[in-house]
Amino acid sequence: MTSRPQSRTANRVGPLRPTAGAHCVLRPAGWSRIAGGFWGERRRINAEVCVPQGPALLEAAGNLHNLRLAAGQAEGAYRGIYPFLDTDVYKWLEAAAWQAADDDSADEHSTAGLTSVGSVRSVESEHSSGSATADIEDIDAIVALIAAAQRPDGYLNSWFQVVKPGERYTDLRWGHELYVAGHLIQAAIALHRSTGRVDLLQVACGFADQVDATFGPGNAVDGVCGHPEVETALVELYRETGEPRYLSLARYFVDRRGHGLLAPPDQRDAVVGPVYCQDHVPVREATEVAGHAVRQLYLLAGVTDVAAEADDQELRAAAERLWAEMVARKTYLTGGIGSHHDDEDFGDPYELPNERAYCETCAAVASVQWSWRMALLTGQAKYSDLIERTLYNAVLPGVSLDGERWLYINPLQVRDGYQHPDGDHGVRRTPWFRCACCPPNVMRLLASLPHYFASADDSGLQLHQYATGRFGDETTRGRCAVRVATDYPWHGRIWIVVDECPADTAPWTLSLRIPAWCKGFRLVVEGEPTEAVPEEGWLRLRRAWRPGDALELELSLDPRLTVADPRVDSVRGCVAIERGPLVYCVEGVDHPGGGLDDLVFDPSAGLTEKHDPGLLGGVTVLHGTGRRRVIPALDGTRGGGDGTAAWWPYRSLERAKRASASVTADSHAAADADAAGQFELTAIPYFAWANREDGPMRVWLPTS
Amino acid sequence: MTSRPQSRTANRVGPLRPTAGAHCVLRPAGWSRIAGGFWGERRRINAEVCVPQGPALLEAAGNLHNLRLAAGQAEGAYRGIYPFLDTDVYKWLEAAAWQAADDDSADEHSTAGLTSVGSVRSVESEHSSGSATADIEDIDAIVALIAAAQRPDGYLNSWFQVVKPGERYTDLRWGHELYVAGHLIQAAIALHRSTGRVDLLQVACGFADQVDATFGPGNAVDGVCGHPEVETALVELYRETGEPRYLSLARYFVDRRGHGLLAPPDQRDAVVGPVYCQDHVPVREATEVAGHAVRQLYLLAGVTDVAAEADDQELRAAAERLWAEMVARKTYLTGGIGSHHDDEDFGDPYELPNERAYCETCAAVASVQWSWRMALLTGQAKYSDLIERTLYNAVLPGVSLDGERWLYINPLQVRDGYQHPDGDHGVRRTPWFRCACCPPNVMRLLASLPHYFASADDSGLQLHQYATGRFGDETTRGRCAVRVATDYPWHGRIWIVVDECPADTAPWTLSLRIPAWCKGFRLVVEGEPTEAVPEEGWLRLRRAWRPGDALELELSLDPRLTVADPRVDSVRGCVAIERGPLVYCVEGVDHPGGGLDDLVFDPSAGLTEKHDPGLLGGVTVLHGTGRRRVIPALDGTRGGGDGTAAWWPYRSLERAKRASASVTADSHAAADADAAGQFELTAIPYFAWANREDGPMRVWLPTS
Repeated sequence: MTSRPQSRTANRVGPLRPTAGAHCVLRPAGWSRIAGGFWGERRRINAEVCVPQGPALLEAAGNLHNLRLAAGQAEGAYRGIYPFLDTDVYKWLEAAAWQAADDDSADEHSTAGLTSVGSVRSVESEHSSGSATADIEDIDAIVALIAAAQRPDGYLNSWFQVVKPGERYTDLRWGHELYVAGHLIQAAIALHRSTGRVDLLQVACGFADQVDATFGPGNAVDGVCGHPEVETALVELYRETGEPRYLSLARYFVDRRGHGLLAPPDQRDAVVGPVYCQDHVPVREATEVAGHAVRQLYLLAGVTDVAAEADDQELRAAAERLWAEMVARKTYLTGGIGSHHDDEDFGDPYELPNERAYCETCAAVASVQWSWRMALLTGQAKYSDLIERTLYNAVLPGVSLDGERWLYINPLQVRDGYQHPDGDHGVRRTPWFRCACCPPNVMRLLASLPHYFASADDSGLQLHQYATGRFGDETTRGRCAVRVATDYPWHGRIWIVVDECPADTAPWTLSLRIPAWCKGFRLVVEGEPTEAVPEEGWLRLRRAWRPGDALELELSLDPRLTVADPRVDSVRGCVAIERGPLVYCVEGVDHPGGGLDDLVFDPSAGLTEKHDPGLLGGVTVLHGTGRRRVIPALDGTRGGGDGTAAWWPYRSLERAKRASASVTADSHAAADADAAGQFELTAIPYFAWANREDGPMRVWLPTS
Repeated sequence: MTSRPQSRTANRVGPLRPTAGAHCVLRPAGWSRIAGGFWGERRRINAEVCVPQGPALLEAAGNLHNLRLAAGQAEGAYRGIYPFLDTDVYKWLEAAAWQAADDDSADEHSTAGLTSVGSVRSVESEHSSGSATADIEDIDAIVALIAAAQRPDGYLNSWFQVVKPGERYTDLRWGHELYVAGHLIQAAIALHRSTGRVDLLQVACGFADQVDATFGPGNAVDGVCGHPEVETALVELYRETGEPRYLSLARYFVDRRGHGLLAPPDQRDAVVGPVYCQDHVPVREATEVAGHAVRQLYLLAGVTDVAAEADDQELRAAAERLWAEMVARKTYLTGGIGSHHDDEDFGDPYELPNERAYCETCAAVASVQWSWRMALLTGQAKYSDLIERTLYNAVLPGVSLDGERWLYINPLQVRDGYQHPDGDHGVRRTPWFRCACCPPNVMRLLASLPHYFASADDSGLQLHQYATGRFGDETTRGRCAVRVATDYPWHGRIWIVVDECPADTAPWTLSLRIPAWCKGFRLVVEGEPTEAVPEEGWLRLRRAWRPGDALELELSLDPRLTVADPRVDSVRGCVAIERGPLVYCVEGVDHPGGGLDDLVFDPSAGLTEKHDPGLLGGVTVLHGTGRRRVIPALDGTRGGGDGTAAWWPYRSLERAKRASASVTADSHAAADADAAGQFELTAIPYFAWANREDGPMRVWLPTS
């Protein structure tokens, strides 16, 4: 083992730590702590419910048993059918590690007293978000088990060691060995950064060295893994250890992909084919995101990392091009991506069906990870715009409000009478999955969430997301830090107090992201209303900030009615309701009769809002006006000879127009009696759906 | 072997021959022959191109090699990955058998001279549709090979004999053994009915007896096959041999399904789960079609057969209920069914996306087979309405006009820039598939097509579909037959001449189906315009018909604009164009610039029609008015602070309305100069799409 694990660095505890030489415009803020409010509560659930449940769930599902088999510490059959089951353990370890770091930093970055600044309506009380986090003994035991399972040459994969001995690296298309290695590396880095422990990092470096000695020029194997992930992990291992071989290996994997090493072009149609495996085109030449969404995004995270550390402008251009293409043509309003159940594929441009939205929770997590790399690489606010949208509306729906149950897929519509099958791809929250990739992925993201909220550069600090907490960095001129208190996303006011400044009195810049959806904002600096114009999404406030300086930013959260590009066929004639960063939906449980298939929304009738602290943990509810559409019932008979049969759901345009006119006339007649059959429509934030009962739901509302 | 193959019966050559005791309202007409016109040409291609290619394609794909392996006549590895590859051979044999019967009947039922009746615009010249049909030596050789592969106890399945010896009936969920048996039985019946040969029927009875001795009460196995098919085959074998055990066995398979024998309820989420296998609910209790579409429809064909022969009213009610549900909620305008690529599943009610329409060609074939059974069982015209729609718009698109290439799936939309992958599930016509179920399925349907066009009962004859040819039956009182000449579906006139009548002069009824889409018709009997009112789709003409009596029926084929049930989200705000039984589509190749994503159709501007004999083998083209929508281009920048980002495809309703208004204003301004950017839109019959070049296509046209 030639890598050189470094001692713990208290600064910049988080998944990404670009080197000083990285060609990033921004770097993650060294101290980011969320201490309350919306995300504080979500993270409290993660720390007190989700993460602590991990070891028992991994035990019950067999993941730990499988590692014991590999370590010679157990007997019996391998459990589960996937070759990547070790990654559930690694992702859980990563989550536990970030959570441990969060607990450690609680005292140092206290935000106590912050709520006295301004008249915060309901900022939540201070709490330690880690009070019931994973027991360190669990971490110790699992790390020891992993180390015991490792082969003397560094190789480590319970599936191949137990089920396919002697077949290492013979099935790169489906074997997932390097994907598993990548998650091991990320877990090891998290433990190292969070707690300073080097044991798992040594295991990870041992495996990375084994991979490095096996793959690449002059070695035995010229190949890549069917599931990208090791690329971004290797770049981070380079960052953590300083070992340049890991960066070279990552670059090799990035560049060898797309040359048919995994699946020849004539097997494009194969079950695990070249597009699915991200092997259909070199990423430098790619013009659109394609194939298995999570694989594509993990790859692009690695591409962006390599671009940053190697100053590879061609890779950077590819990443920028592919991000823009994905967002413009293949992203749901929620930020969710990947529309096909089949092959977990991105789908074609504008092919964004609501009912069959796959929108894997893992893909949303991966999207946040990639966009954050892009934000740091470029400094552009749009990447954090998408992160915000994705966190609230594509990651968060994947976990129940109580932290006990999960969704693997996240459709934007459920019809009346839908039977809600259980299971990995069912639309009912489930305690765990056979392919349990999503739950620990959400756990590790929420545990490291503060890392994605703020950045720094030589000019000062940037707040990308708004949450009650403390955000700061050790800049070249000293420490800069601010405390934030906010009731966002329920209320648009954000109080910011400068907490630490460089010792000199030179001005520095506090940059605040004005979300792209925001139609207006109000800024008060030290009690003075202040005019400011955002530049490409950033409100850049340059000033000789001193400790105690206070700002108040209020973003307009007025509800918005949104329509889609007309090429998105699935939502033609529909609007969606948004408020602030939140996408809203309607659920059957809130509506008389419970059905939504015949719902028509009147966008001209306005929306009212009301915060309901007793509903779904406290959400702002929007009310509008709906009515029931009159849909002719089919009776199975043949009907008249006018070209429309009573057993057939398609009818002539003329007849439909006549029917519509008569309904309208009837409605007008009925208006005197009962307000034309209208009723109050209730919309809740989409992230909170499916937390009360099974039933219909829709994000996009037909308007006629 | 206890079954008793009967000698050849010249009457009623076709896949279905209900017994005299069957509780069917109608029986297939004994003599049905198509001798020209639209279907004559499609069947000529089938007979001269598709069917003759079969043996070479089956040789190249390995199917015959696999049977040789099972027969001990070859060495080497099994080819292909599916356990049901023998069925391709059986379905081809069935096609070749029906084609042979068609050739035999050509002289007997000549329609020569018919075109002199009336001023037929362009009825095609007489031809023998079987001039280049499969060589009888191919049939002999393949039948001999199948017989050689059969085990002494009757079992016959090359996959299990070669790849899984000793594992018979141990994997009913995926093994397909009874499914394969069903297709063997159907091929054997076809050869027996068509040519009188009993050799393959003896093989089939041997296998059926082995199954009968293995499954069911008192036998070793209580189980059903994961892929239904054997049920309908066993009923037909009962009809062919008179052996009641086969009917009992079919009923056993129908009733044991849905009790978790294949996949326990807790495996609902499994890859080959209970819904996929049609094992989630007993068919008597089912309220909706579900799961793998082909499996569901083959099962329902068998259910309908059992209902007819056993006079099982509960099964009949289930079939009627499920047909109505399928048609009302899960059928595309084309008659295509099965919207999910994933699991080849029906999809949820109204979930009918156009781009991801799976619409497997086999499902359309199965739909025709089932609906024909329902038509005979009930006598209701709606079943033949759906058959007509499905034949023209869901079966026929599956084969290229030249008969050389196939589509497995049949989407209703292809976007601009779609890359048209090859292969089983690609949207590019392909010479053969790895899972080659569809091509021989179309072959056998087209070869037996006349069988589905006419029926008889004691009152007389019923014409369900209109094609140039001769249709008749040996009734209880003597022979009734008519000759038909028509240019349908291009022209609505249908000439009918009574050809044979019972010896007495008592009246009998000629019933003509008036399609549900038909807004008007004109009837002339013996030169006299005649008023007649259809009853539930049937124009029943009771008269003392004598040979030479002539009728002229003219159906209005005026183009129609059609809209869908508002719950079909994918086509909200769209219309489709239909003419007669044909659904139309637009293809990029016919339009300036070639793109269709930005197309807007003006439904108020009218349609004109023109028959183009030089286009796509001669089709009636419809012309309308379209324009290009102005879709704002995204530039990747952040855009203004008005809530709409220039990198995001979703925008505010207000902004979209303003943009639309300004475009309209601009258009009005431009109208003086260049007719507001309008252009002539060209629609072709959907069945003929993808026969010129790869490119975009759409059936449903946005109107605003």
